[in-house]
Amino acid sequence: MGRPSKPLLDRERITTAALQLVDEKGEFSVPQIAKKLGVQTASVYHHVDGRDGIVELLRERVCEAIDPTPLKSPGLPWEEAMAAWARSYRAAFAAHPKAIPLLATSPVRAPRVLEQYELAAGLLLDAGFAPADVMPVIIGLDNVVLGSALDLAAPETMWEPADETVTPRLAEALAAMGAAGRPDRAFELALRGLIAEARGLLLA
Amino acid sequence: MGRPSKPLLDRERITTAALQLVDEKGEFSVPQIAKKLGVQTASVYHHVDGRDGIVELLRERVCEAIDPTPLKSPGLPWEEAMAAWARSYRAAFAAHPKAIPLLATSPVRAPRVLEQYELAAGLLLDAGFAPADVMPVIIGLDNVVLGSALDLAAPETMWEPADETVTPRLAEALAAMGAAGRPDRAFELALRGLIAEARGLLLA
Repeated sequence: MGRPSKPLLDRERITTAALQLVDEKGEFSVPQIAKKLGVQTASVYHHVDGRDGIVELLRERVCEAIDPTPLKSPGLPWEEAMAAWARSYRAAFAAHPKAIPLLATSPVRAPRVLEQYELAAGLLLDAGFAPADVMPVIIGLDNVVLGSALDLAAPETMWEPADETVTPRLAEALAAMGAAGRPDRAFELALRGLIAEARGLLLA
Repeated sequence: MGRPSKPLLDRERITTAALQLVDEKGEFSVPQIAKKLGVQTASVYHHVDGRDGIVELLRERVCEAIDPTPLKSPGLPWEEAMAAWARSYRAAFAAHPKAIPLLATSPVRAPRVLEQYELAAGLLLDAGFAPADVMPVIIGLDNVVLGSALDLAAPETMWEPADETVTPRLAEALAAMGAAGRPDRAFELALRGLIAEARGLLLA
């Protein structure tokens, strides 16, 4: 009997199964992954560095969609570079909103993701930021991006008062907003605000 | 046989059971709640307006911890009122980070929560905001608050490079940040930025 041309189990397939579980339920367990792949739980552990290792594989998979190019484009002003990175980062996480709490609350160890933070930190240091200001700016950007990625996954109509006469001013604001571009306007406002505030730190 | 002095099942107990499930796993199902309470699934449905009704009970429970006072303090400038509300809102959700994706992606119908948005919309309209600008400001604030609430639930050490020589600039920025107040500085930066940007809309 020849060996099968594809291994029954590999890190790619484990990551795909874990992401399917997370997209569905916001969580995964190693036995659930094993069940999904039709193998023993112990076989899964054989391929990965424990449960935490699977979280990092998930992080790499979700973050593959983030374009790091703006962070390494020497001619680009740091404001534009950070904004472009943030937009791409937001789109990547908006595709997997249920993964957000899991990934946002476990430490980043995935080398290819750390590399993006290395580029962002280098960009801000090169722009003249005090080292103590760099992480607050990056984390502030993380906050805006992840909060907004969740909003992109929200229903079109987010506020549904049973009786609009009880909340007339909210009704007025909702009617005036229009449907188009709701999450985008809020995100761009928060992003612009953060970058302006960061510029303030730089000039202080 | 007399009736028990407390009903076996009421909305408070259903809400508590649902929140325990969500805090643990980020999700709940009606059969899981029934199992937790030792009753039939149908009995749970008898007390609530379906699964969506339970989501709204959860929202009310989490949002009970938000202090709406700043939104109805006539002497307070709108900037301070919104910032104080945002800080209280962030603390309430940081206590239940796994509830964030569930609540952020289902429409708000809970009357007591809609009331807070009514106050916020009224505050901004009274401050002179164009009606079309009110929701983008409120949603931008939501984004910053929810992203930061997730960050409050993150581990102290969020970036763990295996080899710091590969990410020297990130290491420099992390070392300079110090441990204390990491999430707070980022949140205040993003919050200040959003409010300044909103002020810009008001003056435009």
